[in-house]
Amino acid sequence: MANRIAIIGTGNVAWHLSRSLENAGHLISHIYDRDSEKARKFGMDYFNATTGSSLNMSEIDAEIFILAIADDAIEDVASRISLPKEAILCHTSGSKPLSTLGYAPTDNVGVFYPLQTFSKGKAVSFENIPICVEGENRFTTDALLRLGQSISDKAQEISSQQRRAIHLAAVFACNFTNHMFTVSQNIMQNQSLDFEMLKPLIAETINKSFEIGPKRAQTGPAIREDLKTLDLQYESLKTDPELAEIYRLISQHIIDSYSN
Amino acid sequence: MANRIAIIGTGNVAWHLSRSLENAGHLISHIYDRDSEKARKFGMDYFNATTGSSLNMSEIDAEIFILAIADDAIEDVASRISLPKEAILCHTSGSKPLSTLGYAPTDNVGVFYPLQTFSKGKAVSFENIPICVEGENRFTTDALLRLGQSISDKAQEISSQQRRAIHLAAVFACNFTNHMFTVSQNIMQNQSLDFEMLKPLIAETINKSFEIGPKRAQTGPAIREDLKTLDLQYESLKTDPELAEIYRLISQHIIDSYSN
Repeated sequence: MANRIAIIGTGNVAWHLSRSLENAGHLISHIYDRDSEKARKFGMDYFNATTGSSLNMSEIDAEIFILAIADDAIEDVASRISLPKEAILCHTSGSKPLSTLGYAPTDNVGVFYPLQTFSKGKAVSFENIPICVEGENRFTTDALLRLGQSISDKAQEISSQQRRAIHLAAVFACNFTNHMFTVSQNIMQNQSLDFEMLKPLIAETINKSFEIGPKRAQTGPAIREDLKTLDLQYESLKTDPELAEIYRLISQHIIDSYSN
Repeated sequence: MANRIAIIGTGNVAWHLSRSLENAGHLISHIYDRDSEKARKFGMDYFNATTGSSLNMSEIDAEIFILAIADDAIEDVASRISLPKEAILCHTSGSKPLSTLGYAPTDNVGVFYPLQTFSKGKAVSFENIPICVEGENRFTTDALLRLGQSISDKAQEISSQQRRAIHLAAVFACNFTNHMFTVSQNIMQNQSLDFEMLKPLIAETINKSFEIGPKRAQTGPAIREDLKTLDLQYESLKTDPELAEIYRLISQHIIDSYSN
């Protein structure tokens, strides 16, 4: 079933979501940005879309209004928007609970959170991207699930509490992992070595971790309880005491995780 | 130039290295294991190889003897082996310095360290694997560099000090990264969620990190200095105080890394 959809926001998530929804046969009928020029430019890709900078949207021809804006703006925009009767209003944030839409002028509020990171101008296929859907009522949940399933094989109902866990899990698996790469690159550069050298090893490590699961894939001095190497490496980090402590704590956490 | 090569050890590294060297036209002429039956079985893949459990190898027809054994056994085996005149003896360890071979009965000692993780029975192409080569003298270094270049485009001379840095960098980029996945999986499972959900996000995060470099690719609450989210996530980890402390320290280290 095709929907008429209004997109509120013109950033990365808005860009990717609009394309994907239009490709799936939905109609992007309106684009909002508080900067009307930004809305107009964004709207040029969507022939049937009106554009504008007014939050009075009660006359906009859409059933689903998607907030694709900064986390901190959601509550405010939702409280100031006006919508057609029966319209669904959803946000696309991983970290904000459904209750952030508590002041919206409709009961049909929900969450439509695509679990992916988006880069400007680099189109991605949504097919394998999990879409985390939540609704204040069954009507909303079902409508957003159908919308999710129209662009992804992995749309599913996820509670605010579960979404909070996903966000925390992603901080460890993505943000912290990326910082481990930064630390690693610094260590290499201090010895005039190129981080490139490590890429085949990193790639194979992650392949193996995905294949057999991270718990079984763990290697290194900590899980071997190779105290001699652990001491030597800890000592060599002493010029950055914070980093040395991170090394010590993660190593200890690995040891403890496998000794139960 | 083809070499005659003796392989000391029958583990993963021995298995992968032997195949790759033979495919590149070298001759695997002898297999050693302290368990002669293991040596015999391993040797069945190499028609021209003799096998045995004796460290008296002065009559073995090989120019290069490769120690592919556990790190902690290297020093002992090197001190007890006997070799033909002029033979080269090298180990394959990332964490042991060249001096570990100090008691070997030859001056032609070196290191031949393939920077990769190997899984049993799953053949890998060595072409893109960096081979870190070090020699006690020019003759040894050059011979091992040639050997490395015969199986890889990325054989290069690496000092013991550099190799120590590579090993530490790999602990952060691989071992710790994998543990971040384990932590992430635990967080997901506590909310009845499948770690699978995160894989597209992790894959894209790593793609981006490799593409534009980890320093520029950093995202998340820490680099945004989103203290509200940092506090909430920290509090939610309090049931595992060690993990909460890891969360706090890595977040702080990210903030500090970008504020200079």
